[in-house]
Amino acid sequence: MELADLPTPSLVVDKGRVAVNTAAMRTRLAGHGVNLRPHAKTAKSVEVARLALGDGTGGLTISTLAEANYFLAHGLSDMTYAVCISPGKLDAIADLMRRGADIKIITDSVDVGNAIARHGAPFQVLIEIDCGEHRTGVAADSAELTAIADAVTAMTGGAEIKGVLTHAGHSYLSRNGEEAAEIAEVERLAAVAAAARLRDAGCETPIISVGSTPTATHARSMQGVTEARPGVYVFQDLFQAGIGSCGLDDLALSVLASVISRHPERGTVMIDAGGLALSKDRSTGAFDGEDDCGFGMICDMSGTPMAGLRIAGVHQEHGEIKVTDRAVFEQLSVGAKVRVLPNHACMTAAAYGVYHIVEGGVEVTETWERCNGW
Amino acid sequence: MELADLPTPSLVVDKGRVAVNTAAMRTRLAGHGVNLRPHAKTAKSVEVARLALGDGTGGLTISTLAEANYFLAHGLSDMTYAVCISPGKLDAIADLMRRGADIKIITDSVDVGNAIARHGAPFQVLIEIDCGEHRTGVAADSAELTAIADAVTAMTGGAEIKGVLTHAGHSYLSRNGEEAAEIAEVERLAAVAAAARLRDAGCETPIISVGSTPTATHARSMQGVTEARPGVYVFQDLFQAGIGSCGLDDLALSVLASVISRHPERGTVMIDAGGLALSKDRSTGAFDGEDDCGFGMICDMSGTPMAGLRIAGVHQEHGEIKVTDRAVFEQLSVGAKVRVLPNHACMTAAAYGVYHIVEGGVEVTETWERCNGW
Repeated sequence: MELADLPTPSLVVDKGRVAVNTAAMRTRLAGHGVNLRPHAKTAKSVEVARLALGDGTGGLTISTLAEANYFLAHGLSDMTYAVCISPGKLDAIADLMRRGADIKIITDSVDVGNAIARHGAPFQVLIEIDCGEHRTGVAADSAELTAIADAVTAMTGGAEIKGVLTHAGHSYLSRNGEEAAEIAEVERLAAVAAAARLRDAGCETPIISVGSTPTATHARSMQGVTEARPGVYVFQDLFQAGIGSCGLDDLALSVLASVISRHPERGTVMIDAGGLALSKDRSTGAFDGEDDCGFGMICDMSGTPMAGLRIAGVHQEHGEIKVTDRAVFEQLSVGAKVRVLPNHACMTAAAYGVYHIVEGGVEVTETWERCNGW
Repeated sequence: MELADLPTPSLVVDKGRVAVNTAAMRTRLAGHGVNLRPHAKTAKSVEVARLALGDGTGGLTISTLAEANYFLAHGLSDMTYAVCISPGKLDAIADLMRRGADIKIITDSVDVGNAIARHGAPFQVLIEIDCGEHRTGVAADSAELTAIADAVTAMTGGAEIKGVLTHAGHSYLSRNGEEAAEIAEVERLAAVAAAARLRDAGCETPIISVGSTPTATHARSMQGVTEARPGVYVFQDLFQAGIGSCGLDDLALSVLASVISRHPERGTVMIDAGGLALSKDRSTGAFDGEDDCGFGMICDMSGTPMAGLRIAGVHQEHGEIKVTDRAVFEQLSVGAKVRVLPNHACMTAAAYGVYHIVEGGVEVTETWERCNGW
């Protein structure tokens, strides 16, 4: 089957690009001497996870209980669930552990630490550190850090502290490798400082975990860190290209769509990929001029960007392309197919149940499932 | 089971409110003497469709082939697929017809009209009219209108023109019932004028279809129109409340979420419903002040809005609430549950496989499936 035979909209992954992106990150982190724990929240696919791990084994980062059950069922049992756990999910975590999951959970709350201890199961806990994004996490020098450790380990033979985890989400505010490298250093120092305090307080703290695609890509040093958790690098996307994490040629994910309507007097071409098929993510709106890609960048069927063509607006099932060049307009006749590069791969992929795999060309060689929902 | 026992995030529907919203629309359109063809793209649920139809029978509007197959399998065979058809989908439509679907398709293109005629199947075609949104559709007074009819009906015994269809999407720019009523009149006149031209050209044109929730709600006259296709009214949402289509008490859809982290020094409470669980729709950003609800409005477990609480920002699995009131902060302890009203019900619901049904209270009485994807 070829791409042109797929129904539209469909989600397409270039396996060769995933192989290049994932090999580059493995090489980079091996050079730093740290473990790679890829964040599976982007692809939610065991095939992509195995490519990211290289030899197909090792630990993952996850963001939902659905991912935990899915990866465990596929034999990948070493997981860090990198969203602060709510007390209501502890029974499900304990159940996953009974079924063989080597799952680490995280918190930034003394109250949750108490709930973890009271539960009684031998949970493995990482304390989330805030390294500057101010989303979740406690400061490395805060009283809460040791208070959480004390709370978690209050019951002998129960839960234990396995380390610290931080995410420099504010690396998304960087606009080039230099800026990302500076944030990476702040991220590293926060994690290392927090771990040192826990060790001083008598916690072994074997895991010192950092990670985001920009910081893992540009960090100059990972001294003292034990692992990194980048995620979106497996596919990359227009936002990552815009902040210098990758080039446009690295983008592995696209949405196949058909032209369904066009109006020369309005200079518009409509495709059957809209807000559901692309997501309403507008992260490239943070960029000026050409780097603001609207809701996605238009490519031909080979995956080559068509100069200047963007999704200017979306409705639920419609995407609108503004076309001023007459020759380009003629190319986009009704029924013609295009591929749309997404602003944010994690958001776009979430609308689909499967990936259609190509390897550079237009032949569909495989179909890979995704694990959606919670 | 009670709401508090559900995993988070989960999607919750108040059946009583759906019953009120759908009965009101039926009464309103019956008063105008026009047929109601509810747009199933919002709920994508046979249970909601049957509530909307009243006696459980009648025609639907749909937006994907997946919906067509799903509703046909559930015995609802009368459908209008209200997204311009691409030639690549005609085989699938013909197959649906062979399996018993009474399915109408739409186009605004002479080229597609030719493809429809060439295909040879007895397609039922509506011509899409642009009544001012300039998304898709031809002008009621355009040469294309009759050219499309001629193209579609070029083969004797093949496809036929069943009428015209228009969607006043620009009614979403209205800010009150008066403005929506004015756009409704423009929508009506465009549809009626286009139908008159087709009839003059010898096309029978039995269907004259208009529709959007704001115009169906506020139209003063539907003279000459045969049917209306509102969609989001079944659930309503914060955007519809903001433009006067409904009150906050009419909102039937919410996302159940848990508090997972909170930091008094930052004035933030984080919940486990983020960009995937709520969507990144920012439609209420079009409103000033209190009516801009960020990514959603926070309610307690009874569904009552908590004064001034909004989702200020989202990450993939995190939603951030800014809380300045100390008493409210105390209420939102880690593990506490809230319900989030969405900006745009169609976008938010699309992330979930099922609805958990309540009837005013907190007891979960049923689970209804959704039909996602394409």
